[in-house]
Amino acid sequence: MPYINIRVTDEGVTKEQKRKLIEGATQLVVDVLNKNPETTHVIIDEVNTDNWGVLGQQTTELRKLESNEK
Amino acid sequence: MPYINIRVTDEGVTKEQKRKLIEGATQLVVDVLNKNPETTHVIIDEVNTDNWGVLGQQTTELRKLESNEK
Amino acid sequence: MPYINIRVTDEGVTKEQKRKLIEGATQLVVDVLNKNPETTHVIIDEVNTDNWGVLGQQTTELRKLESNEK
Amino acid sequence: MPYINIRVTDEGVTKEQKRKLIEGATQLVVDVLNKNPETTHVIIDEVNTDNWGVLGQQTTELRKLESNEK
Amino acid sequence: MPYINIRVTDEGVTKEQKRKLIEGATQLVVDVLNKNPETTHVIIDEVNTDNWGVLGQQTTELRKLESNEK
Amino acid sequence: MPYINIRVTDEGVTKEQKRKLIEGATQLVVDVLNKNPETTHVIIDEVNTDNWGVLGQQTTELRKLESNEK
Repeated sequence: MPYINIRVTDEGVTKEQKRKLIEGATQLVVDVLNKNPETTHVIIDEVNTDNWGVLGQQTTELRKLESNEK
Repeated sequence: MPYINIRVTDEGVTKEQKRKLIEGATQLVVDVLNKNPETTHVIIDEVNTDNWGVLGQQTTELRKLESNEK
Repeated sequence: MPYINIRVTDEGVTKEQKRKLIEGATQLVVDVLNKNPETTHVIIDEVNTDNWGVLGQQTTELRKLESNEK
Repeated sequence: MPYINIRVTDEGVTKEQKRKLIEGATQLVVDVLNKNPETTHVIIDEVNTDNWGVLGQQTTELRKLESNEK
Repeated sequence: MPYINIRVTDEGVTKEQKRKLIEGATQLVVDVLNKNPETTHVIIDEVNTDNWGVLGQQTTELRKLESNEK
Repeated sequence: MPYINIRVTDEGVTKEQKRKLIEGATQLVVDVLNKNPETTHVIIDEVNTDNWGVLGQQTTELRKLESNEK
């Protein structure tokens, strides 16, 4: 009875990509742990880039830096 | 000092239902564990049906199947 | 398909108390939201009192203060 | 490689305040635990005041009471 | 920069199974969302069967029922 | 009423370090958001290095590689 929470930035994740994440994460615990898909829940949280930080900086700002580097 | 996180799909949960969830969850830890309601926090997360999967499928799709079965 | 996470300090919660928390939290979402208990998961996390703070202080220390007040 | 999740009510947190929370939380684990900011992630969740309860009541209602007390 | 949290019951998950869960979950977000594995964190939480409930019952009890059915 | 969850690997975090994390995280939301420390909860989760992955690898293995590089 796994519970899987996938948190990503909200940069245009499509319904089809979400479908693949749910399908793939469920298959993973079925394959590795022999879990029952009926009791396997997957929840995707999309987080605004202002609200997610790494390196002490907002992702919004990191994306600008990445963009300028190109 | 409990922290209770209730995650549900965002299928029209009303303010009154949220009130009842918060009241009921708080009462539960008061009754069972003798906790102080002043330090008991309840957070309800509403999750889009595209973002919640069970059985490896999006709830959005499962709802359609349920609807067709009727 | 609710997911309910109850976090409490690890101050001797018994198996019977955990049973009541799981039963009560499940009944709550059945009563308030008409949810299916088959897809309702409840997870209890027990947290060491050194690891839970409120008022900027560890619960371990707050318990000592409470004890001294008596 | 810390992961820090800050959950607050959605009462007008500005981008600049989010920036400071991310910067400060990252600095905290660098200072106290000597962690690497490159692998330190901070996520801020803003929660509707109807969805956050304390004392068994919705924050929305508690804010009204506070306001009336003045 | 995904964060993936996999919660399972603590029924003898081996280090090798954990390795596969981490590898597989990371690969999933690389394949589906083109994410960078350097900023992809996977955390596995193992939960005692007394602390995980479904159908309003502790997993510990559900396992006994399953065992008796055989 | 913030809730702050700090997840770190369980590599010998001392009680004093936990005290500083709780104190510092509480002060952060007081300073930046003018929050009340009475309703600010901080929870530290210590995660086994086998259970935390980055770059698709267990921290346990990454630590060995780091150690060999020296």
